[in-house]
Amino acid sequence: MSKAKKSAPSVSMDPLAIGIDIGGTGTKFGIVDRNGNVLFSSEISTRGHGEVENYIDELHKQLYTLVEKAGGSGRMRGIGVGAPNGNYYTGTVEYAPNLPWKGIIPLAKLIQNKFQLPTVLTNDANAAAIGEMMYGAAKSMKDFIMITLGTGVGSGIVANGNLILGHDGFAGELGHTIIIPNGRHHPGTGKYGSLESYASATGVTATALEMLENSEEDSLLRKIPKSKLDSKKVYEAAIENDKLAKEIFDFTGKILGMALANFVMFSSPEAIILFGGLTKSGELILKPTREHMEKNLIQVFQNKVKILVSHLKESDAAILGASALVWEMKD
Amino acid sequence: MSKAKKSAPSVSMDPLAIGIDIGGTGTKFGIVDRNGNVLFSSEISTRGHGEVENYIDELHKQLYTLVEKAGGSGRMRGIGVGAPNGNYYTGTVEYAPNLPWKGIIPLAKLIQNKFQLPTVLTNDANAAAIGEMMYGAAKSMKDFIMITLGTGVGSGIVANGNLILGHDGFAGELGHTIIIPNGRHHPGTGKYGSLESYASATGVTATALEMLENSEEDSLLRKIPKSKLDSKKVYEAAIENDKLAKEIFDFTGKILGMALANFVMFSSPEAIILFGGLTKSGELILKPTREHMEKNLIQVFQNKVKILVSHLKESDAAILGASALVWEMKD
Repeated sequence: MSKAKKSAPSVSMDPLAIGIDIGGTGTKFGIVDRNGNVLFSSEISTRGHGEVENYIDELHKQLYTLVEKAGGSGRMRGIGVGAPNGNYYTGTVEYAPNLPWKGIIPLAKLIQNKFQLPTVLTNDANAAAIGEMMYGAAKSMKDFIMITLGTGVGSGIVANGNLILGHDGFAGELGHTIIIPNGRHHPGTGKYGSLESYASATGVTATALEMLENSEEDSLLRKIPKSKLDSKKVYEAAIENDKLAKEIFDFTGKILGMALANFVMFSSPEAIILFGGLTKSGELILKPTREHMEKNLIQVFQNKVKILVSHLKESDAAILGASALVWEMKD
Repeated sequence: MSKAKKSAPSVSMDPLAIGIDIGGTGTKFGIVDRNGNVLFSSEISTRGHGEVENYIDELHKQLYTLVEKAGGSGRMRGIGVGAPNGNYYTGTVEYAPNLPWKGIIPLAKLIQNKFQLPTVLTNDANAAAIGEMMYGAAKSMKDFIMITLGTGVGSGIVANGNLILGHDGFAGELGHTIIIPNGRHHPGTGKYGSLESYASATGVTATALEMLENSEEDSLLRKIPKSKLDSKKVYEAAIENDKLAKEIFDFTGKILGMALANFVMFSSPEAIILFGGLTKSGELILKPTREHMEKNLIQVFQNKVKILVSHLKESDAAILGASALVWEMKD
């Protein structure tokens, strides 16, 4: 476990960082000390705010009460933001399929102007990778890939000890790589067969619906109305030994494992760190993932790459990762 | 064109570098000055030497006559070697499916001992990438991917101005990434559906044989005995407007384009630089490649990434790339 659990919350007037993690559904935010203790945190809806200005107002209002509790604005060193399709170089969020705001949004600038604090923004999964490197499973690693398996699939890639940002700041969109040519349609991107279409919570639900439709197999899942079916229900059925539910995880792990093999053959990381809702299914998904990763790796990579599950507390990790950006800011 | 063409060959006693490029079929080697002029070069067979010691002896014998011509061993700063599955950290070649020597071969050490010169080794495509960055199409780029389309498919990835080597030195095996799950069998690796199985000279020949078998279409290629069919013959038929031959390139470009889209979504390079025999087919392969890359990219990457063909002279480029390693050596 990270330092967050070992050291007592900071009571001095040491500087603090604000971490904001913007997801497709909700936005988590908190105030974090240098040791990775999340001192205060809360959440607002992302989806409920069609207008970005309106969203920023609400975020400011809710976050401001936490800032006051933590000793006021003067104690805050800055704001770190993780957001889907967030660009470190420009501070913009561009064409994010899972966010309600379309086009190019100058989010870092909007937040900086509203809060009057230096603000740095990156891809949500890049932020998570920095959090893992600073406080989590990737401590002391120089080459690793962080994959978040949530509503969508995000990724942050670290090589030679640095985030790979690419020439334009958009590197690391592994959820959108094509794993099954002409495969499942992704309504957000319009593409076919991307990793995210299969190895996300949404993807598992889609697989469940497909398998129920195409098979005659009896299953606990048949008792659940289709509109209520989700990855959690599939997990619950699988631990009851439901054959179809286990097949759903096998299929998901097969595709994830194939994708991970490709990523390994790209950057040859020491470990792949998985994070997010789907990892709660543990070996149900990890076992087929590991198997199919190894199966698709050429010999030189076999039995070398660890698949680790993040051990940061999920509610904290996203905020921690975003806040970690602040400590890396140049003065 | 690179400096190689602009400046006169070095006649002073400036240090020189030896570049050795080991391919599955042949090994090219030469003596290069700091400006990228290949002063002397020659070639021996790789395939013909089942024993690595025997190969090193032959290499030493042939190369030594060039060294003598160039002013003797004292003028040589060192030896740079590019080899499939070559590892920069360990100087070994490990489990290279296209080389005659199996297992782990301490090639840098063997060469260093034989020649009594400091020797550095890396993946052949990594060497090519350094050559492009120093003398070729990637000059002044910090983020690019080099793909060699020869008998096999190699790759070298540069991010933040550095080669991505991975935790173990084996990063950048993009030819072995799986593009078509359960696709064509690769006899060297035993894997199914890798990029190399399709987008190499060998892959084009296999596609030609498959298409001739599965179609009723008349084609110039039907006049060629199957054992004589190769990618060059397919090219010659395609420029004669042969429909089937053009379909072979369209199919190859489709798979290559899909793969490039995945690579772009990994490291977001400024350009992808293609090199090797297949690039001689020009727009026949580049057009479908570009189209299918764009088709599979999410919006944020579209119409941004250049696909460039290396403009280094093919016979020189591999030697140049390998020799470039020498100038990067630490004293």
